[in-house]
Amino acid sequence: MVINLKNFINSHALKSKMSDFQDLNHVDGVSISTVCANLYNKPRDDLVMFYFRDGANYASVYTQSKIVSENIKWNLKIKSKKIKSLIVNTRNANAFTGLDGYKGLKEIAQELAIQLSKKQTEDEEYPKKISANEILFGCTGTIGEEYPTQKIKKNISGLVGNIRYTQNKLIWMKAALGIMTTDTKPKLAMEECKIGNKNIRLYGIAKGSGMIFPNMATTLGYIFTDADLPNDILKKLLKKNIETTFNAISCDGDTSTNDMVSIFSTGKANNSIINNINDKKIASFDAALHSVLLNLAKRIVADGEGASKFITVNVVKSKNCNDAKKIAFSIANSNLVKTAIAGEDPNWGRVIMAIGKSGVSIDLKKLLIRFGNIKIIEKGQLVTNYKESEVASYMKSKSIDISINLNMGLKNFTAYTMDLTKEYIEINTDYRS
Amino acid sequence: MVINLKNFINSHALKSKMSDFQDLNHVDGVSISTVCANLYNKPRDDLVMFYFRDGANYASVYTQSKIVSENIKWNLKIKSKKIKSLIVNTRNANAFTGLDGYKGLKEIAQELAIQLSKKQTEDEEYPKKISANEILFGCTGTIGEEYPTQKIKKNISGLVGNIRYTQNKLIWMKAALGIMTTDTKPKLAMEECKIGNKNIRLYGIAKGSGMIFPNMATTLGYIFTDADLPNDILKKLLKKNIETTFNAISCDGDTSTNDMVSIFSTGKANNSIINNINDKKIASFDAALHSVLLNLAKRIVADGEGASKFITVNVVKSKNCNDAKKIAFSIANSNLVKTAIAGEDPNWGRVIMAIGKSGVSIDLKKLLIRFGNIKIIEKGQLVTNYKESEVASYMKSKSIDISINLNMGLKNFTAYTMDLTKEYIEINTDYRS
Repeated sequence: MVINLKNFINSHALKSKMSDFQDLNHVDGVSISTVCANLYNKPRDDLVMFYFRDGANYASVYTQSKIVSENIKWNLKIKSKKIKSLIVNTRNANAFTGLDGYKGLKEIAQELAIQLSKKQTEDEEYPKKISANEILFGCTGTIGEEYPTQKIKKNISGLVGNIRYTQNKLIWMKAALGIMTTDTKPKLAMEECKIGNKNIRLYGIAKGSGMIFPNMATTLGYIFTDADLPNDILKKLLKKNIETTFNAISCDGDTSTNDMVSIFSTGKANNSIINNINDKKIASFDAALHSVLLNLAKRIVADGEGASKFITVNVVKSKNCNDAKKIAFSIANSNLVKTAIAGEDPNWGRVIMAIGKSGVSIDLKKLLIRFGNIKIIEKGQLVTNYKESEVASYMKSKSIDISINLNMGLKNFTAYTMDLTKEYIEINTDYRS
Repeated sequence: MVINLKNFINSHALKSKMSDFQDLNHVDGVSISTVCANLYNKPRDDLVMFYFRDGANYASVYTQSKIVSENIKWNLKIKSKKIKSLIVNTRNANAFTGLDGYKGLKEIAQELAIQLSKKQTEDEEYPKKISANEILFGCTGTIGEEYPTQKIKKNISGLVGNIRYTQNKLIWMKAALGIMTTDTKPKLAMEECKIGNKNIRLYGIAKGSGMIFPNMATTLGYIFTDADLPNDILKKLLKKNIETTFNAISCDGDTSTNDMVSIFSTGKANNSIINNINDKKIASFDAALHSVLLNLAKRIVADGEGASKFITVNVVKSKNCNDAKKIAFSIANSNLVKTAIAGEDPNWGRVIMAIGKSGVSIDLKKLLIRFGNIKIIEKGQLVTNYKESEVASYMKSKSIDISINLNMGLKNFTAYTMDLTKEYIEINTDYRS
């Protein structure tokens, strides 16, 4: 099969260039399958299945919302040590769908287990029976609409039929496209690293462009690796790295009922056993995981609903991390800061306002604020050589860096967000997400 | 002087009808004076002075922002038991203006004190020398721009020259117009009540249409009464009534450095002495104060930047007030809820999302949600006879009521906000507030 990814991207009318994407290829032990279950009543893939023929170790982090979707409830009940499949549908969040929504998942999982067990019998030397309890679900879309159980169930055979054991960049792209809702760009990222002398691959896809605020694994993000790592190590690595990546982004301060980030490790790389999070052999894996998660998280913000600019808010020299985070998000979530940036207005007064309303006690006399490399406030006062025209010209950049130096300690936090534009309003007054 | 208020309103091209306003008249002991100090470089009044010829008892509540404007710092230092004047300028917030901004206020206060003392000598039988320490300031406008001390100082004689001892509805309207920034409508309210057998008047004006979120006396609000009440009683009454009025509104979740609500009592009504907040004689005053504050607060929300709909979020039967407030503001501050309402989309899923992200533990099985009188969720489930068309038709109303019944306790909280429209973005990408 000859793949022309450029044509493929063009044919999907995406706001992307070929150079936007790394070359994801094959992760041993992972099979991807996509299908159009007509959930959107449009000819687009809307159902994506990941199949781990020999199972995968895994770890997940979920939304911190007090109201969670039925699929998150399902996933939280899974006690199996290995996962055989993750199935992701768009268009319907399966949230506030009650017992029917939960039963729907059970019905789909049972059907998928039967069909995958059959495939094992056909393809494997030592087939294993697959149980519904080895299947995870990702759901994203409108809250409170009846879950399309039958539409999805009907397409299980198509998903299983589409399974190929060798992956390529087209299928990764199709998976990233298949989980999109209001996203305008697919989100993919990869890193390679070593555990001991073994080469390890980390591939990830994600979706999300609104209703995004941390305190959890915002939006959907799935990482796949051929490393062999136990569930508890995966969990610790995921939790540690999520804080400064998926939990450092905000599009609109709203939190979904369905957020989920998972990592699956197939163990096919046959690296030596790791039982301790501090084992030096996983330092490079740890860094690679951070890099993949941050890459995906930044892509989500860059594609935030209506975004015209990417904003980095860097708070440094805080007494503690929590204060730095509060200030960073007070700025990153301020509609007034974000509209000023959309308007390319060097309105640093609104940044001051957002620092003030964060509730963090600061020493004004030590405060230093920079937009890009331009110093604006020093020792709590407007710099004497302040040139508004210089800052106004900086505000025309596609990427805006706001740096707050509190000069009160040693802790830092960086938040990522985007500007607030009329297009955000347009998307969200029209669309049911 | 014959006043045609209708022509006056028309000539100011305001989005208001005559019937929008009550008839404010004379409060004994209060003189109002307005002038164009050219702060906007436009022919509009931008400087407003309230003069209490015999002094006024008073109380204020201020912004809870950790960064406050110079005039709030000035006001907080005033120890005088009686106030002689309140002077309010627009266009410049006098925030982040450092020592120069503070010195500017001192210079203006000293000049005003001299000129008012002179007026006392001319007009009063027993003239009193007025000190700079008996003057309060309200400032509103852009943060971080040099405070226009000289422009204001130059106009003191004009302000003092304009003083008339009898007020009428035109001068109240001029005052309400003179303190506006991005407001499209002046905000005035009044109530009459009794303390003992004395008739009491409570008149109020306010401004504010963006950067509005509570935890303080949001925006500028000034109440004037001829009641005779000591400062500590005024303070207690103001604090108590602010919670469910000015502190129950939100336009965009942003908090200003300059917010201030004050009450001034001239004592001219000669009511009997009140020394206890529980004195039954002030029950009617208490209710009237609440009514004036709520009236003004609602007018601020109704005139919120870009508002096309007024939203009331009513959370009832909560375990405690704090939970009710958290849920109410989680909904009232959600961009996704507010854009859905702007789009007249009955997207109750976003209300569920906002309840979930509030962090309050609720019993889903007891949850009841209404839009207007239409029951949507009962016992945590979509009602069986749910008709989207019915709710969609309700969403076309100018005023949207969202009711959340938690069925978990006895406490309630009501928040007021408006929808989020493209006009909000337009105003805030263009304007320096």
